[in-house]
Amino acid sequence: MAIEIERKFLIDPALLPKLPAPFVITQGYIPAEGVTVRVRTKNAKAFLTLKGKREGIVRSEFEYEVPVDDAFAMLQELCPAPLIEKKRYEILYEGHLWEVDIFEGENAGLYLAEIELESADETFAMPPWVTREVTDDRRYYNSNLRTLPYVRFKNEA
Amino acid sequence: MAIEIERKFLIDPALLPKLPAPFVITQGYIPAEGVTVRVRTKNAKAFLTLKGKREGIVRSEFEYEVPVDDAFAMLQELCPAPLIEKKRYEILYEGHLWEVDIFEGENAGLYLAEIELESADETFAMPPWVTREVTDDRRYYNSNLRTLPYVRFKNEA
Repeated sequence: MAIEIERKFLIDPALLPKLPAPFVITQGYIPAEGVTVRVRTKNAKAFLTLKGKREGIVRSEFEYEVPVDDAFAMLQELCPAPLIEKKRYEILYEGHLWEVDIFEGENAGLYLAEIELESADETFAMPPWVTREVTDDRRYYNSNLRTLPYVRFKNEA
Repeated sequence: MAIEIERKFLIDPALLPKLPAPFVITQGYIPAEGVTVRVRTKNAKAFLTLKGKREGIVRSEFEYEVPVDDAFAMLQELCPAPLIEKKRYEILYEGHLWEVDIFEGENAGLYLAEIELESADETFAMPPWVTREVTDDRRYYNSNLRTLPYVRFKNEA
C-alpha cells in the first residue's frame, strides 16, 4: 500500500522540451463506488490498481503488477468501453519527476502533466510549459475522461 | 485468468466427517457494478480477486496474491462493513475437492459446501452430508451475505 499525493496541470505542448520515448498506456475502469479500480497496460507490463477516496490531494493506492494477458482480458470483459489511451512521457524537472500524458481517441487534444509529491505541502519548481492547475477539477480525472471525454468539454475548458 | 465453474450446496453439519484444520477467512467486497471485487485474507496469505458476470454456473476469475498488510488496509478502508468471516475446511470426496464453509458473525448457523468443476456438465459423487443445491440462489452468494446476512433469512431458507 502507498499513499498517492498528486497534483495535476494543463500544459502548453508547444513549450515542451524534446520528449523521451513514451510509455504506451491503455487503461479502463471497473465501475465501483467510492473506490477507483483501474486496469492498465503500460508498454509490456500491466497493473491492477485500487485507489481510495481522495481527501484533498491525498489518497491511498494499492497497485499490483499482473500478467499482460490478464489485463487484456479484464479490459475487454470487465471494463466498459471506451478505454483511455494515451502516451506518457517522463520528464525530470529540477529534481522532480513529471508525467506528461498526451491523450488519444476521444480525448485527443488533451495534454496533462502530473507530479507526485512526498507530502501535501511539498514545494517544487513549476516548469515553463505548465499553464494551469486542475488537481481539483473532476473533469480531468482519468476515470471521468472515459465517460465524458475531452472532445465534449474542451471548448469550455 | 481462470474460468470458475462452481456449484454450491447446503449441508447437514451433523453428518460431516472429522474435519481437518481450517483456513480462517475474512473477506470484504468493494462495491462494484457487474464485477465482484473481493479482498480476502486466508490464514497468513491474502488475495485480491475479480470475478466477471456469472453465465449459468461459469464466470471468469482473476486472482492475485497480495501482501497481507495491504489486504488488512483494503478491508478497512475500501470494503464496507460488515466483513464476511468463516472457517473453510477442504474435504476430498471421491476424487473431488469440496470446500466446506462454516460462517461466523451474522451468518453464524450457515454451512455451505462448494465444488469447483472443470466443465459445466462434469459429474461428481454427492457426499452424504449434502442436503440441497443453492447454486442459483443469490442469497447464498458471499457478496450478498454481507448485505443480507443469514440471520435475517434463515427462517425462510
